[in-house]
Amino acid sequence: MPPLPRLSVFELTRRHGVARLAFNTPKQCNALTPKSYDEWLVALDYLAADTETRVLLLTGNGRFYSSGQALAPPPGVDFGDPIALKKWVVERVEVTKTVVDRIITFPKPIVVAANGPAMGFAVTSMALADAVYSVPDAHFSTPFMQLALCVEGCSSITFPERMGYAKANELLLLGKRFTAHEFERYGLVNEVVPADQLEATAMKAATQFADTHQDALLQSRELIMRQRRPRLLQQNRDEMDLLIQRMLSAEFFAAMMNFISRKQSTPASKL
Amino acid sequence: MPPLPRLSVFELTRRHGVARLAFNTPKQCNALTPKSYDEWLVALDYLAADTETRVLLLTGNGRFYSSGQALAPPPGVDFGDPIALKKWVVERVEVTKTVVDRIITFPKPIVVAANGPAMGFAVTSMALADAVYSVPDAHFSTPFMQLALCVEGCSSITFPERMGYAKANELLLLGKRFTAHEFERYGLVNEVVPADQLEATAMKAATQFADTHQDALLQSRELIMRQRRPRLLQQNRDEMDLLIQRMLSAEFFAAMMNFISRKQSTPASKL
Amino acid sequence: MPPLPRLSVFELTRRHGVARLAFNTPKQCNALTPKSYDEWLVALDYLAADTETRVLLLTGNGRFYSSGQALAPPPGVDFGDPIALKKWVVERVEVTKTVVDRIITFPKPIVVAANGPAMGFAVTSMALADAVYSVPDAHFSTPFMQLALCVEGCSSITFPERMGYAKANELLLLGKRFTAHEFERYGLVNEVVPADQLEATAMKAATQFADTHQDALLQSRELIMRQRRPRLLQQNRDEMDLLIQRMLSAEFFAAMMNFISRKQSTPASKL
Repeated sequence: MPPLPRLSVFELTRRHGVARLAFNTPKQCNALTPKSYDEWLVALDYLAADTETRVLLLTGNGRFYSSGQALAPPPGVDFGDPIALKKWVVERVEVTKTVVDRIITFPKPIVVAANGPAMGFAVTSMALADAVYSVPDAHFSTPFMQLALCVEGCSSITFPERMGYAKANELLLLGKRFTAHEFERYGLVNEVVPADQLEATAMKAATQFADTHQDALLQSRELIMRQRRPRLLQQNRDEMDLLIQRMLSAEFFAAMMNFISRKQSTPASKL
Repeated sequence: MPPLPRLSVFELTRRHGVARLAFNTPKQCNALTPKSYDEWLVALDYLAADTETRVLLLTGNGRFYSSGQALAPPPGVDFGDPIALKKWVVERVEVTKTVVDRIITFPKPIVVAANGPAMGFAVTSMALADAVYSVPDAHFSTPFMQLALCVEGCSSITFPERMGYAKANELLLLGKRFTAHEFERYGLVNEVVPADQLEATAMKAATQFADTHQDALLQSRELIMRQRRPRLLQQNRDEMDLLIQRMLSAEFFAAMMNFISRKQSTPASKL
Repeated sequence: MPPLPRLSVFELTRRHGVARLAFNTPKQCNALTPKSYDEWLVALDYLAADTETRVLLLTGNGRFYSSGQALAPPPGVDFGDPIALKKWVVERVEVTKTVVDRIITFPKPIVVAANGPAMGFAVTSMALADAVYSVPDAHFSTPFMQLALCVEGCSSITFPERMGYAKANELLLLGKRFTAHEFERYGLVNEVVPADQLEATAMKAATQFADTHQDALLQSRELIMRQRRPRLLQQNRDEMDLLIQRMLSAEFFAAMMNFISRKQSTPASKL
């Protein structure tokens, strides 16, 4: 294999079969920029093929896991030019869609260590992992409706499946923030552990996956996953088709501008 | 739109986009008579089309949410005439089936405020709502088997989905009564709140639905709901076909007569 | 009907419509030998057809419910003869597959009384029952990966369905042991009851099933079960195809020999 890819917004290391991929823009609360999605995709493609990687451990450096998609006007895109804007939106959504596809079809276990709060896509992508460990004071929310956007990351399947429609609607449609303990209760988090034990706990599970008989593990994992994989891939496609529509809507444009102006007058620590 | 339809066994009001539809025969524990199903259907059809309604809030006036289907011999039907009896049963079940269909396909969020105990169809229809709030001393049961009837209201899907088969069998087949807190634990109730805060809590969620960007909300809700809607519609059809059989069975006739005679010697407060 | 079949590793009795089938090799922790599967199949076939049986109560005599599949080299099979070994494995897996099929399609309610710890197939088959009651100090584990085997008994469907993928992976892939209370929390156990009340509690549920209007009960049960039955039957087939592969793998052979040698130096009470 070629050496580990050099990434600028992620930190990627690998030891004893476990690749640790960490969101690494802590000053920006690990918010997801276009570059984040691009590099995430590079990392997933590399690690899927890497024969020295048997497990992916996903986490964040700093106080946040990730605050989700960074909201900013598309750089270098003229808003007055609807064709250019649409081209930009379609391209960006295609990358997001591919990241979700690659997580759904990732051929090795994915373990998440939620080291702090997560929002939006950082929450929905977490629900696709094989195991999730969290610190007690992490919280999880998906403010899609405040931004006039839509469900994504297959959240329209994964959360109703775990919490039922009524509770999932609170998360996805009413913007309610859930605690780590609530997520644990619904089976979205395997275990809530003190911050100073998080990395060790997640690494222990990852190492166990890495040390298990790999044929037995991967074939069983395949039997477990394949039931819902086609449904997830289809739902991802439909969510992303809707996301393009939403990102081109006047509702979203107004909500984003409102959010950005509010954010500029609010310290990130209030998130 | 025409004015709100006048209903005799429901109370229907509307304010700020939220239509409040309340079972309104508290002296009869809000039991569901043929007229209840007829008016429920009128209300659902009206509100689905009503441009001033963005959310439906469903609740009960009085101490009960609803004691479920009223058990009474069909009025004006000669039991000795099997053709007349079957015609009556088929017509009534068709109305019930249509109410369930209309709830499943209702194009706007439905919020339930369970102000007291619910039984039978009042419980199963609740499990199809978008959000459910309950008072602490409400309880929920579906005494289908005691009456030699069958699962209905898509309960053969909704409850196994939430509680698993083992617990759902206790509710649906063994007639076990569940508390509001137990329903909350399974995600069938979003939140248990003191009686004096119920209406405000449910109204707050309803108002939030009403105030959200409607395109974003309804398109996301559609992505969430559509996965199971075809299965629900098919299951409703099959449950209702079975219900016709059951209502024409000797087992049911005997069980109903036994229930009515017991009920006449038991105050409703023992329910 | 012919008299109850005589079984050597199960105890089978019948009273008031409830057939009690108990694992009955307590000195071997009710481990499942080839004979266990053969007799289990005989019992299921008999009881499915038996007009005096309306409910099956499954339990274990002694301290264990069942320690799962006994690990022993196939008796009288020459390991150096790959054709003979494969023939033996295919035949044994076919019997296991048929036991699972018969449980999935069993036409009457199955109630489990988990009188003690259960492992492997004893756990996965339990998750297919209509109701499960357990003593507080039972625990449940499926050490498939330690043995380089694979998910079976439709566990790749039933556990993700109840616990979600993340927790199910701990059980199925990481070999984590779950307590009775944890299983209760996920709806895999209906109720945890003190050991001296277990049989009475399970028998009460079984008797209630037996005493319910049978047409109403069985038709409703059918509507509840039939949604997932085809998926379960297909998954059982695929799991068992994989199990044949796994049982013929060098990984399994080494793991089994290692397990057997460890077990011979470890008292069963350490399980």
